[in-house]
Amino acid sequence: MTTNNDAPPSCKVVLASAVAKKLLSEVSGNLSRLSQPPILVGFLANKDPAARMYADWTGRTCRENGFAFELREVDREDLDEHLRSANRDPSIHGVIVYYPVFNSRRDQTLQWILDSSKDVEGLCPQLIQNMYQNVRFLDPPRNIQKSILPCTPLAIIKTLEHLQIYNTFLDYGKRLFGRRITVINRSEVVGRPLAALLANDGAEVYSVDVTGVQCYSRGTGLRKEQHHVSDMEGWTLGDCLAKSDVVISGVPGASFKVPTHLVREGAVCINFSSEKDHT
Amino acid sequence: MTTNNDAPPSCKVVLASAVAKKLLSEVSGNLSRLSQPPILVGFLANKDPAARMYADWTGRTCRENGFAFELREVDREDLDEHLRSANRDPSIHGVIVYYPVFNSRRDQTLQWILDSSKDVEGLCPQLIQNMYQNVRFLDPPRNIQKSILPCTPLAIIKTLEHLQIYNTFLDYGKRLFGRRITVINRSEVVGRPLAALLANDGAEVYSVDVTGVQCYSRGTGLRKEQHHVSDMEGWTLGDCLAKSDVVISGVPGASFKVPTHLVREGAVCINFSSEKDHT
Repeated sequence: MTTNNDAPPSCKVVLASAVAKKLLSEVSGNLSRLSQPPILVGFLANKDPAARMYADWTGRTCRENGFAFELREVDREDLDEHLRSANRDPSIHGVIVYYPVFNSRRDQTLQWILDSSKDVEGLCPQLIQNMYQNVRFLDPPRNIQKSILPCTPLAIIKTLEHLQIYNTFLDYGKRLFGRRITVINRSEVVGRPLAALLANDGAEVYSVDVTGVQCYSRGTGLRKEQHHVSDMEGWTLGDCLAKSDVVISGVPGASFKVPTHLVREGAVCINFSSEKDHT
Repeated sequence: MTTNNDAPPSCKVVLASAVAKKLLSEVSGNLSRLSQPPILVGFLANKDPAARMYADWTGRTCRENGFAFELREVDREDLDEHLRSANRDPSIHGVIVYYPVFNSRRDQTLQWILDSSKDVEGLCPQLIQNMYQNVRFLDPPRNIQKSILPCTPLAIIKTLEHLQIYNTFLDYGKRLFGRRITVINRSEVVGRPLAALLANDGAEVYSVDVTGVQCYSRGTGLRKEQHHVSDMEGWTLGDCLAKSDVVISGVPGASFKVPTHLVREGAVCINFSSEKDHT
């Protein structure tokens, strides 16, 4: 199983669109029961063509799936005020900001403004803290409102569910117990939160980047309520791959491709970079 | 996950009765659509109390689940003729013989008499050969009549399906691809056929007994149509357990218990002996 093309014949290739299809129809089904569509407001405060592309894509995808979307182009110096106003406006259900805005630490301060109940990207401090600390709901003990997760790590989890790597026979929150997963990339946007999420769900995760290998795990018998991180001195990528049922990588560039001859027979390989990254 | 009691708290214990429940209701559902219940005839030709117990259990289980069962106690010298007659009798749908009859090679000759279409235990040469050679149907290319599998190995496969170790996302016949399974016991009745079945379904199987370790596998990328067996010189039980997602054992006696401290975190452990065999 891999999301790569040019796969050897023993591989079953799964494209992200196949994973999305079922989820989108679930979303449409739920939306059709509402009296009016939820409104997502996007704030574009830069001239970055990639941000513009992402904004256009958001609008198209919202329209195709029954959400209302409104793009507001604003001056970046006014963005904090716009966000506070959106927090107060009951007609706005979700907000997305196209980062980078200042491309500095000021962007982080902006992320702290948005109310957690409208933060569809899960970037506000409370949501990020919940994710790392394995707190899954915003309203304990009722547990109806899920704490929002960042989109790319969540998409990878949905892919692993689709591939039945999550074992639904096990209790919710422990469904990756017994799985060993290598995550190549430890960025704050994908790799590190993803490693934490997978370990919180019960996996033993080997997080690999140029500085070395870390293990994210809830310990023997999942005794810990949330994952802990330990440095794996002397471990190589090869050591991680030899143990892993799942290999997730998102490192573009020819020099960082996954050496597939080290991947275990039958392992699931997921590429979340825009380039092919398995040799 | 384990079928053992006294399990550590991180274990999820599953009893065989829970696995059987769903299967039995499926069987009842199918039977209720027939105009009359299928008739199973059991031949008892020895004085072995264990055989008598098994015969009583067969009768009770058949009655509880909508089959007709008839026990025939016969002289063992006449058994071959009884079996030939049962082969010809269209009112008999299935036959079970309570072995051992002679407790010698003559028992095997008896197993060769029964028609494969009535052999509910899958002991006749054609069915055993099909099992080892990964031939799943009796009527290719229509593929409606499944080749019967021996009951204990089949029960273990059904248990692994229940526990979602078979990944139904993968193609039929390859659903254990990527799984490593240790089978401790290489008897002709359970261990060896089981290792073959699991390897034919895509697993890499380490078959362990007092003579050493063998690997049953369809090779890289499941290139082979059926499993092949290779001796693993120098391998110990510990080497097998360190790699295995699943450990299946059926070796009674205190000196052959599975050393659970060598079992991988999150592994599925199945005991098919009548004694507790995990330390």
